[in-house]
Amino acid sequence: MSRWAPNAHERLQAAAWELFAENGYEATTVAQIAERAGLNRATFFRHFADKREILFGGEDALSTAFVEAIRAAPVGTAVSECLEAALTAAGELMTSEQHRRAGQRRRAAEASVEVQERGLAKNARIAAAAAAALRDRGAGESTAQLGAATLMLAFAAALREWLDDDDPEPFAPYATRAFVALRASALELAAPSRSSMGPRQTSNAPRAPTAT
Amino acid sequence: MSRWAPNAHERLQAAAWELFAENGYEATTVAQIAERAGLNRATFFRHFADKREILFGGEDALSTAFVEAIRAAPVGTAVSECLEAALTAAGELMTSEQHRRAGQRRRAAEASVEVQERGLAKNARIAAAAAAALRDRGAGESTAQLGAATLMLAFAAALREWLDDDDPEPFAPYATRAFVALRASALELAAPSRSSMGPRQTSNAPRAPTAT
Repeated sequence: MSRWAPNAHERLQAAAWELFAENGYEATTVAQIAERAGLNRATFFRHFADKREILFGGEDALSTAFVEAIRAAPVGTAVSECLEAALTAAGELMTSEQHRRAGQRRRAAEASVEVQERGLAKNARIAAAAAAALRDRGAGESTAQLGAATLMLAFAAALREWLDDDDPEPFAPYATRAFVALRASALELAAPSRSSMGPRQTSNAPRAPTAT
Repeated sequence: MSRWAPNAHERLQAAAWELFAENGYEATTVAQIAERAGLNRATFFRHFADKREILFGGEDALSTAFVEAIRAAPVGTAVSECLEAALTAAGELMTSEQHRRAGQRRRAAEASVEVQERGLAKNARIAAAAAAALRDRGAGESTAQLGAATLMLAFAAALREWLDDDDPEPFAPYATRAFVALRASALELAAPSRSSMGPRQTSNAPRAPTAT
């Protein structure tokens, strides 16, 4: 086993995801991952802080997709259009391989508070990056924060539904549905008057969608 | 040191906050907290899982304040009014003692990833409780989620500004300012058309954004 391992990072990731699929995340050890990759534990720890890091390896890709899409939108693009562009860009990452991995990650999170906490920390970093990208375009502080929160909620809702479907369809329609619902909710939240809580009213402001 | 310790929970909390103020969170040990309270380590661990639990001891109170205020709002109350009521109720918890404690918590979080992660987990639980309370009133799923997220953002923004002021004013005006800004942001996000990103427009429609 040489210290110089070409593509060690990718080999360790591939080995880990194979083992997670075979035996589950909890039952897989770092030693097993290293062995499957033909490497040793020391090499593993040169590439990853711990096993959870592999589970959340897609964080950078998602964050980059969001940030680049927000940055790339033409000057004058509405916040909601920036967020839609970010979701579209994220959708391109959501391959059938990602469907398997995200399902694995969800099962691991259901079984472990530590995994949940790592996921929350990951989401907080992605949201902060998206908020910074919106701020850089001139969005006010609360719009940047709420925009990033809406983006994360749309992505999470779309991901849940996408994962609930065993046969992974393209991600985009899930993301669109989630975002349209959230935009309607934003309008409802913005309304200072009585709206769709409790007994339904028969009329709404002209552009307000009906709550579902 | 008797095993039966009246008010052990409160005595441990008070001792811990005294020591955090004197020596900082990081430098304070569980042994010191127990000693200051006239108790032993075993008693500490019967009451708290770890030192971080003391730092986040207010979680239940905040969550309860949010949930009860949302539940208590009359039938037909708009979501935004439920959220305002929740912030008002939370404001009543924000005493000058809380100002000191929240400042301590912020410094501890700045110095420790573990404290940050516990804080994120706490916020996720409070948001989930608030979303459930909105759902129970008949709010749709995305409105419950976005409403809870908006509530958490408003509380966090108000808390930041409140803590930045050394002399703690009542919390309510901070919460109101933060919420008004977020409600305007919600309207901006709901707008499908070009809005305030990039060149500013001079007028906004009072109830509904202009369509393109």
